[in-house]
Amino acid sequence: MRQSKLFGKTIREAPKDEVSANAIFLSRAGYIDKLIAGVYNYLPLGVKVLSKIQNIVREEMNKIDGQEIYLSALQHKELWEKTGRWQSMKEIMFQFEGRGNQEIGLGATHEEPITSMVKKRVSSYRDLPFYLYQIQDKFRNEPRAKSGLLRGREFNMKDLYSFCESQEDLNKFYDRAIKAYLTIFERCGLKAIVTEASGGDFSKEYSHEFQVLTKNGEDNIVICTKCDFAQNSEICKLKDGDECPKCKAKVKHEKSIEVGNIFKLGTKFSHDLGLKFKDKSGKEQEVIMGSYGIGPSRVMGSVAEVYHDEKGLIWPKSLSPFAIHLLLLSEDDKKKQIADKLYDDLIKQGIDILYDDREVSAGVKLNDADLIGVSLQLIIGDKTKDKVEYKIRAGNKKGEVDEKDIKKLL
Amino acid sequence: MRQSKLFGKTIREAPKDEVSANAIFLSRAGYIDKLIAGVYNYLPLGVKVLSKIQNIVREEMNKIDGQEIYLSALQHKELWEKTGRWQSMKEIMFQFEGRGNQEIGLGATHEEPITSMVKKRVSSYRDLPFYLYQIQDKFRNEPRAKSGLLRGREFNMKDLYSFCESQEDLNKFYDRAIKAYLTIFERCGLKAIVTEASGGDFSKEYSHEFQVLTKNGEDNIVICTKCDFAQNSEICKLKDGDECPKCKAKVKHEKSIEVGNIFKLGTKFSHDLGLKFKDKSGKEQEVIMGSYGIGPSRVMGSVAEVYHDEKGLIWPKSLSPFAIHLLLLSEDDKKKQIADKLYDDLIKQGIDILYDDREVSAGVKLNDADLIGVSLQLIIGDKTKDKVEYKIRAGNKKGEVDEKDIKKLL
Repeated sequence: MRQSKLFGKTIREAPKDEVSANAIFLSRAGYIDKLIAGVYNYLPLGVKVLSKIQNIVREEMNKIDGQEIYLSALQHKELWEKTGRWQSMKEIMFQFEGRGNQEIGLGATHEEPITSMVKKRVSSYRDLPFYLYQIQDKFRNEPRAKSGLLRGREFNMKDLYSFCESQEDLNKFYDRAIKAYLTIFERCGLKAIVTEASGGDFSKEYSHEFQVLTKNGEDNIVICTKCDFAQNSEICKLKDGDECPKCKAKVKHEKSIEVGNIFKLGTKFSHDLGLKFKDKSGKEQEVIMGSYGIGPSRVMGSVAEVYHDEKGLIWPKSLSPFAIHLLLLSEDDKKKQIADKLYDDLIKQGIDILYDDREVSAGVKLNDADLIGVSLQLIIGDKTKDKVEYKIRAGNKKGEVDEKDIKKLL
Repeated sequence: MRQSKLFGKTIREAPKDEVSANAIFLSRAGYIDKLIAGVYNYLPLGVKVLSKIQNIVREEMNKIDGQEIYLSALQHKELWEKTGRWQSMKEIMFQFEGRGNQEIGLGATHEEPITSMVKKRVSSYRDLPFYLYQIQDKFRNEPRAKSGLLRGREFNMKDLYSFCESQEDLNKFYDRAIKAYLTIFERCGLKAIVTEASGGDFSKEYSHEFQVLTKNGEDNIVICTKCDFAQNSEICKLKDGDECPKCKAKVKHEKSIEVGNIFKLGTKFSHDLGLKFKDKSGKEQEVIMGSYGIGPSRVMGSVAEVYHDEKGLIWPKSLSPFAIHLLLLSEDDKKKQIADKLYDDLIKQGIDILYDDREVSAGVKLNDADLIGVSLQLIIGDKTKDKVEYKIRAGNKKGEVDEKDIKKLL
């Protein structure tokens, strides 16, 4: 795409009230635009990155036999009263009246509607197990929404729900989900730490969070300096330097971002909402459930937190909004012809490329390219002869490359 | 996919309160599930069809230089007060309070937030024209939501907004959009009639609706029996048999579904929200806007209204949730081996196939296949020898085909 046509000019100053790195750089570079606290619009570059994350999530969920569904955001009071959560979630669930004084809420999570929906189509053990997921927007009336995409009042979420006939089947799927989650984060360039956390109201067992270490995370976790022990500090009373309960090495605290969490729900929702099946002996049993969440928009914010420098964003290849950012830095017509031809050639090869053909100075183009953070820059300048200058944004490594070898850099 | 694993068993009876064909068949066949009036969940089959429609829309919007964005559903009062629509849309816009008594609404349309967002990044004629679209869910507190996917309180929408420096540029893009819309509907199997309608508050000129003729539409249009004259009856006072103002042939009334509409907004929103640019002479001007809507979920409902018989749905190939529905109707192990092998072979060829491997009677399988409405059925029964029986769901045309020729049927 020609940058002269791309909507979303970079801006010099981030919105005054933004304090987190992800919000500042994503806003300045033209990925997102804040409407009100915790509520963001996505510009074309932002949609491209968010879609890439969603597609990675979708692929990995399909690999573990997830089936994609799509539940409504609008919810009704009667259903949520059955689990007691109309009241207990009042603080964070937007609730209001529709026509005929019908009380409506916005989905902050979706255990109730999915359990209710599934109930109409499950009767026997033969209908189990199955795993349903959606990629959909959630709404939470957050008291603190000051961390850009890390904590939104409206945010994108992948939530998967598992329905099994036995605890054993749930455990098996839970382990598959952990592996799939680690693959997702790895593909997004994030190193996630599987962290034990409270099972909440649902379970006496631990739930598991996937935590990424950064400066601006809202979470605090206790990790071992040697083994894979990791617990959320909400359940772990160990102090820095205490002995790891697993390997006796020392533990330390770290501020981090929770990018995913998974719960063994057990029969909490199937009990309250009457989701039952007949087992092999004909006896009625409650379905055993699990829930598995990842926020693609939060992942986007986390990647921006982890991968940036003072100049701007540094996307991993897998999430870069374009594969290549081609910069024409010369006003010489011949160089323009070279750049135009290279752009056309690369497009013909099926490469997604952003071409800075704007009539602005070389300095503006170089600064914008670093701010936008496409993983590979190609530069055509006054000195360009046979080879094309390139810069790999991660590490800002520069070099020269023959046109025929450009694909090798991708 | 093996049907034994597919979530979404067919059900014999549609929900009691459903009256429209689309809601009845889509619910029974396992595409959608009603939560409350006008609010539906999408099951795996439903997501597949809806995604196909969304992708057709996306492709055609990209072809006319649309750039995809994504705006928030949550809206704030102050912005909508500037155009007077916080008040004027009170009846259909869900409005409620967030924290700190902040008044929030749910987006029923998005002219205000997009104009406000665009304003930060437009200053000169050099920044124009551009065209932004999103595929996103809208919320409307509809008084009558009794037509399944045809009129939802929460529904999927593609809305594109054009930003031009002159009326001439707007007119040019408007004509391109009409062509793109007709292509979209054609690809979805719908014959849409371009119908003149009121320009509403925005324009003295007509707006244009895209209308599809069916029994259960909520709209009434006046069309000529000979030429392409078509007007919404809200603006046309002609009676059946009156003379067509264009060609003097007779006109008639028809009940129809509006599947898309486009408006020349002019400067209504750019004026109220201060979206200006400096023209070539340096003079400040208001940006000239247009808006262009298609509801993918409503298109899905419309296709179900137009394409069904008493047995069930009949998807056009372009929207069929699977390319092939393979039915194993024999309990003979050898026939099962043939069906298993055919399934594997077709998957290897990259064909998206639903394989009814369930342990239910042949009658149940045949009925379910007709209800689900995949465009091509392949049948392996007791009598199957070298050739495979097929049925084209549209017209229920049957025949036999060599395995190597199956692709020709697609």
